[in-house]
Amino acid sequence: MDYQPSLDLNNILQQIERHIDPFFGQGEVARYIPALAKEPHDRFGMSIHTIDNQHYTIGDSQHPFSIQSISKLFTLQFLVRNMGEAVWDIIGKEPSGDPFNSLVLLEHEKGIPRNPFINAGALVVIDGMLSCYSDAPDERLLQELRHLAGTQEIDFDHATAESERSTCDVNAALAYLMKSHGRLQHSVDDILDIYCRICSIRMSCSMLARATLHLANAGLSPVTQERILGARDVKRINSIMMTCGSYDSVGRFAYRIGLPLKSGVGGGIVAVVPNKMSLCVWSPALDSSGNSVVGAAALEEFTTLTGTSVF
Amino acid sequence: MDYQPSLDLNNILQQIERHIDPFFGQGEVARYIPALAKEPHDRFGMSIHTIDNQHYTIGDSQHPFSIQSISKLFTLQFLVRNMGEAVWDIIGKEPSGDPFNSLVLLEHEKGIPRNPFINAGALVVIDGMLSCYSDAPDERLLQELRHLAGTQEIDFDHATAESERSTCDVNAALAYLMKSHGRLQHSVDDILDIYCRICSIRMSCSMLARATLHLANAGLSPVTQERILGARDVKRINSIMMTCGSYDSVGRFAYRIGLPLKSGVGGGIVAVVPNKMSLCVWSPALDSSGNSVVGAAALEEFTTLTGTSVF
Amino acid sequence: MDYQPSLDLNNILQQIERHIDPFFGQGEVARYIPALAKEPHDRFGMSIHTIDNQHYTIGDSQHPFSIQSISKLFTLQFLVRNMGEAVWDIIGKEPSGDPFNSLVLLEHEKGIPRNPFINAGALVVIDGMLSCYSDAPDERLLQELRHLAGTQEIDFDHATAESERSTCDVNAALAYLMKSHGRLQHSVDDILDIYCRICSIRMSCSMLARATLHLANAGLSPVTQERILGARDVKRINSIMMTCGSYDSVGRFAYRIGLPLKSGVGGGIVAVVPNKMSLCVWSPALDSSGNSVVGAAALEEFTTLTGTSVF
Amino acid sequence: MDYQPSLDLNNILQQIERHIDPFFGQGEVARYIPALAKEPHDRFGMSIHTIDNQHYTIGDSQHPFSIQSISKLFTLQFLVRNMGEAVWDIIGKEPSGDPFNSLVLLEHEKGIPRNPFINAGALVVIDGMLSCYSDAPDERLLQELRHLAGTQEIDFDHATAESERSTCDVNAALAYLMKSHGRLQHSVDDILDIYCRICSIRMSCSMLARATLHLANAGLSPVTQERILGARDVKRINSIMMTCGSYDSVGRFAYRIGLPLKSGVGGGIVAVVPNKMSLCVWSPALDSSGNSVVGAAALEEFTTLTGTSVF
Repeated sequence: MDYQPSLDLNNILQQIERHIDPFFGQGEVARYIPALAKEPHDRFGMSIHTIDNQHYTIGDSQHPFSIQSISKLFTLQFLVRNMGEAVWDIIGKEPSGDPFNSLVLLEHEKGIPRNPFINAGALVVIDGMLSCYSDAPDERLLQELRHLAGTQEIDFDHATAESERSTCDVNAALAYLMKSHGRLQHSVDDILDIYCRICSIRMSCSMLARATLHLANAGLSPVTQERILGARDVKRINSIMMTCGSYDSVGRFAYRIGLPLKSGVGGGIVAVVPNKMSLCVWSPALDSSGNSVVGAAALEEFTTLTGTSVF
Repeated sequence: MDYQPSLDLNNILQQIERHIDPFFGQGEVARYIPALAKEPHDRFGMSIHTIDNQHYTIGDSQHPFSIQSISKLFTLQFLVRNMGEAVWDIIGKEPSGDPFNSLVLLEHEKGIPRNPFINAGALVVIDGMLSCYSDAPDERLLQELRHLAGTQEIDFDHATAESERSTCDVNAALAYLMKSHGRLQHSVDDILDIYCRICSIRMSCSMLARATLHLANAGLSPVTQERILGARDVKRINSIMMTCGSYDSVGRFAYRIGLPLKSGVGGGIVAVVPNKMSLCVWSPALDSSGNSVVGAAALEEFTTLTGTSVF
Repeated sequence: MDYQPSLDLNNILQQIERHIDPFFGQGEVARYIPALAKEPHDRFGMSIHTIDNQHYTIGDSQHPFSIQSISKLFTLQFLVRNMGEAVWDIIGKEPSGDPFNSLVLLEHEKGIPRNPFINAGALVVIDGMLSCYSDAPDERLLQELRHLAGTQEIDFDHATAESERSTCDVNAALAYLMKSHGRLQHSVDDILDIYCRICSIRMSCSMLARATLHLANAGLSPVTQERILGARDVKRINSIMMTCGSYDSVGRFAYRIGLPLKSGVGGGIVAVVPNKMSLCVWSPALDSSGNSVVGAAALEEFTTLTGTSVF
Repeated sequence: MDYQPSLDLNNILQQIERHIDPFFGQGEVARYIPALAKEPHDRFGMSIHTIDNQHYTIGDSQHPFSIQSISKLFTLQFLVRNMGEAVWDIIGKEPSGDPFNSLVLLEHEKGIPRNPFINAGALVVIDGMLSCYSDAPDERLLQELRHLAGTQEIDFDHATAESERSTCDVNAALAYLMKSHGRLQHSVDDILDIYCRICSIRMSCSMLARATLHLANAGLSPVTQERILGARDVKRINSIMMTCGSYDSVGRFAYRIGLPLKSGVGGGIVAVVPNKMSLCVWSPALDSSGNSVVGAAALEEFTTLTGTSVF
C-alpha cells in the first residue's frame, strides 16, 4: 500500500499499541550498564513528527532514556556540518558484517573503520570533533541537540557515562589499533571520555523525533526553519542509516521496516520517512543484536499500516 | 526534489546521455572472461519501463549482454517462488563486508552464506533449485525469463559458460566448504555447471527492465498481468538489493543512487523505483568493485533528475 | 638425565607398558572413517629401531594400521628426493596456528600453504609428485615404502581410501582455493584421489620405525646401506616434524616428548632420536587435536626414561 | 657431525667471524626506536658459556645492547619461578602463525594468548608478575638478572623505555582486548610501563650467555651453583624457545640453527645447547621478521661447525 497523506496517525499509533502487546516479555534489557538494567521491560513510547509540524505520541513518549548508539547519528551529523566531504576521507560508508569482522577489517583496511555507526567509526568521528573543537565538543553537541529538540531538558547522565567508561575495554582496543595506524589525532583517553559521555545523553522519543526531523526534510528543520544539513548530506546519512544503522540486523530491518533508522542499546530507535516525517520508538528489552524488540515490532507495524517502507 | 509523475522521461534520458560522456574511458572491461573482454568500452544503453507500461530507451538498449550476477536476482526469485519462506532457513540476508570476509564468515557461520547475492549464497540458491527440479532447473529459469521479458530471444551463451566453468576455482572452494558443513545437497560439479550457464545468459537493457517490472509493482507484472511474487517477497528482495546488490559498493551506491539494484560484471545494472518503474543500464567498463562505471553515473544522474532516490 | 647408550631398551618398553595402563579409555577413535572406527580402544604397539640395527618391540607392533597423516612425512621426503631445494619455493616451513587459521593464512599468503604437514601443504606436495611422475606417483611411493621397510606386506586400503575420498570436502575446498591462486598444476580430482590413497596405506609400528630410520642417521639407511636423503634434508625434515608434526599440539608435544615426530589420526606416531634411533607407537584413541592419547603418553615416558628429549 | 667435546671453541669463533663477513650490509636496523636506530650496522659480538664454566668470546661481546624481546624469556622464567604450573592456565604454549593471526587468535581463543613470546603473551606474563609483586616487579627482575649474570652493570635504559612507551599502540590494543575478556588483573598503563621498561634493559652477549646458562644445565646455574628452575621447567622453556622463539621464522631457524633460542629487535639472540652450553650473538641489522641477520648466520655456522643442532 502506498502512503496516504490523509492517514489518521493517532489511530495508527493506537493500532500499533495493540499490535505490540504480545512482544513484551521477549528479549533482554542490556545488563552491562547499571542505568539501563534498571529500566522496566514493559515501558513503551512512540513519537511521530511530520514535516508540516504535526506531532503524534503514545505511551512513554516523554520519558527520557539513554540514547546510546543513536548518538552516533548526531556525532556524524556534527562532524559533517564541521568538516564537510572531508569526513569521508577518514571513515568508510560500507556495512561491516559482524562485530568480529569489524576488528579484522580494521586490520585489513589499514585502520580505517568501515562506517561511522560501528564503534570504531564513532571513535574516529569523536576524534574529528576534537580536531574541530579541542575544548569540550561534547558540550557543543549537547547544545546542538537542545536547540534541535527545542528544549533545555537534555543532559548527560554522568553515572551512566562513568559506568560505561570503566568497562569500555573493547573500544579502547579498537582505538589503540586505529592509533597504531595513525588514524587518531587525540589521546585515546580523551576520545573514550567524550564517547561515553555522549552515549549517556538522555532524551525522550519526542525530543529525538524532533531533533531528527530535518533528515526527513532534505536538511531544513521544519521546527527551527534553519538549514541543518545540505540535501546531499541528508541523502548520505539516510543511506548509511539504511545500510549500517541496526548493528548486525541491517538486512532484516531493511526488509521488515524498510526505513533509514538508527538504534541504540538503551532501547530507542529513530527512523526517517524521507520527505514526510521522523519518528522514534522506545522499549528497553533488546534482541540478540542489540535492537529493541518491541520498538522493531512497532516500526514494522507502522510501515505496514502506512505503506511508508521505501521498498 | 520529489518525483514528478509528469516528468518527460525521454528528455531525462537525453540529459543522462550528455551527463555520462566524460565517464567513458574510466574503468576496465572484465578481462577474465573472453566474451566480456571483447565488448567495446564505449557502448551504453538504458531502458526504463514504468508500471503503466510505458517504455523509454536510449543507446544500445536492445543489445544483449552477459547478465552475469544480475542472474542472482532471478535465481533468488525462482527459489522464493518455489520454496517460499523456507529459503531463509538456508541463506542469510545480511551484508557480508568484503570478499575475503565472505570466506571467513562462511567458516564462522557454519557454512551458511550471508546473503543470496554473494557467490556462496548464489551457489546455495542453485542447490535449492536442483532440489525443486532435479532436471535442468536452468532451462526452467530460462523459460521464465523469456516469459517475463516477453521474448524468445534470450539464451545461454555456451562459450562464455564454458570459459567461466574452467576458471571458477574460488566458487568451487566456496561450494566444497559449504558442502563440508552439510549445506549442499547436490554435486558441486552440477551446481557449478548450472551456475556458470545461468551467469552466461544474454539479455538486453529492455529485456531486463521488462523482466524486473513486477519488483516495482508489488509482485504483479504489468506486462503479463500475472502475480510473479507476493508483495512481502518483493519488499524483501528489494531490500536485499539495497543492502547487498552491488558487491563492495553497497554503501556508496545507496548514497549515490538510492535505489534497490543489482549489478553484474557484464556491465549491466537493473534498478527498481518501487511503485513506479524498473530500469536497466549497460556499459561494459567496470570500477574496482565490479560495477559499471558509466552505468552507475547514469543511474545517479537519473535519481538526481527525477528525485526518485528512496532517501 | 642424559641418554645412556647402555640402557636396556627391552626393559624400558616394559616400563612404558606399565606406565600407559591408566591412559586406556581416554580419547576417542576417529569416527569419520569407518575403517578407523572399528579399531578397538585397547590396542597398543611400539617399535624401536636403532641406527646400529637393533630392534625392540612390544604389544601390537606388527599390526598394520592406517598411517593417515604419517604419510605426509613420506610424500614430503619423496618430493625432496625428486625436486631438491625447489620444494621450498612452493611450500612454506612455518607452523600455522589452528586449522581455521590455515584457511585464512592461505588467503593471506597468496595460496602458498604454511608447511607440508597441514592438509593444504600435503596437497601441494601431491601436486608436485604428479609433476615428477604423471603416472601413478602413489605406486612409486608405495614401492619406496616397501623398499625402506624391507617388506612387500605394505599396501593401500582401497575401502578406506574410497571412504575418505567421498568425505574430503574441506580438502577439496583447500585445493580449489590454492588452484585459484595458480598453486596447483594438476586436476583437483586426481590430487585428491592420490592423497586419499596414500593416507590409506597400512603399516605396522615395526615397518614405520624401519622406514624412518635414515632420519635418525643423517639420511643414510642403516637397513639398506643406501643414502635416502642428504644430511641437510634430514635436518630440515626433522625440524619441520618438531615445529609442525602434531597438528595443534606442537608446543605441548615439544615439551612433553621433545622429539621430531609425526602423528596420524589412525593412532600412529613416528618419532626420531637424531643420531640414535627411530621409533613408532600406535594406539587408536585420539585426543581432541587428533594425536594418539596412549601413544603420546608412551613417547613421553620414553624420553623421560631415556633422557632423549632434545631439550 | 655429532658434537665433539674437545672442539676448540676459540677456533670455532674465529671461523664464524670469517664466515659472517659477507652478511654485513644485509638487513635493516630497527628504525622505530631511536636508541636502536643509532647502532652501527657493522657491530658483532658473540659469547659462549659452557656448563663447566668456560667462556669464549669474540668481537663486541662486552658491549651492552637493548635486549628487547629476549626479556620475554626472563619474564617467563620469573613467572614460572613464582607461579609454577599455574602459569599455563593463563597462557598457551603453541606457535601462533603470523602477527595478524595473533590478533585474530586472541579473539578466537577468548583472550588467552597463544604463547609467552608473542607480545600478547608477554603482557599477560607482566600482569602475572604484578599479581606476585605489586610493587616494582621490574626492579625485582633486574636484581635477578644482575645476580644471574654476576654483575651490577645491568640497567634499564629509560630513554628507550619512554620512546617505546609512547609508540606502543598495538600492544595497548592487545592488552585492552585481553582485558575485555577478563584476562588482565592490573591496569593496562601499569602493564605497558613495566613491559617497556623491561624491554629496554641493556646487557652484553657475555652477560646474556651467563644469565641463561642454567637453561643448558637442567635448571642449575653452574655460575652460582643455585637451582634457578626445575628440570621440567627448563625442558618446557627450551621447547617454547624452539617453537616460538624467533617471531615468524621459527621453522626456518629450527632448520638453519636447530637450537632453542630467543631473539630481540635489538639484534641479540640467545641460544641454548642443552646439557652443554649457552651462547649469545649480537649484530643490529634485522631481517624482515625482526631477527639479526648476522646473528642468525653466526649461529647457523656455529651448529654446522660443532654438530650441535638438536636435529
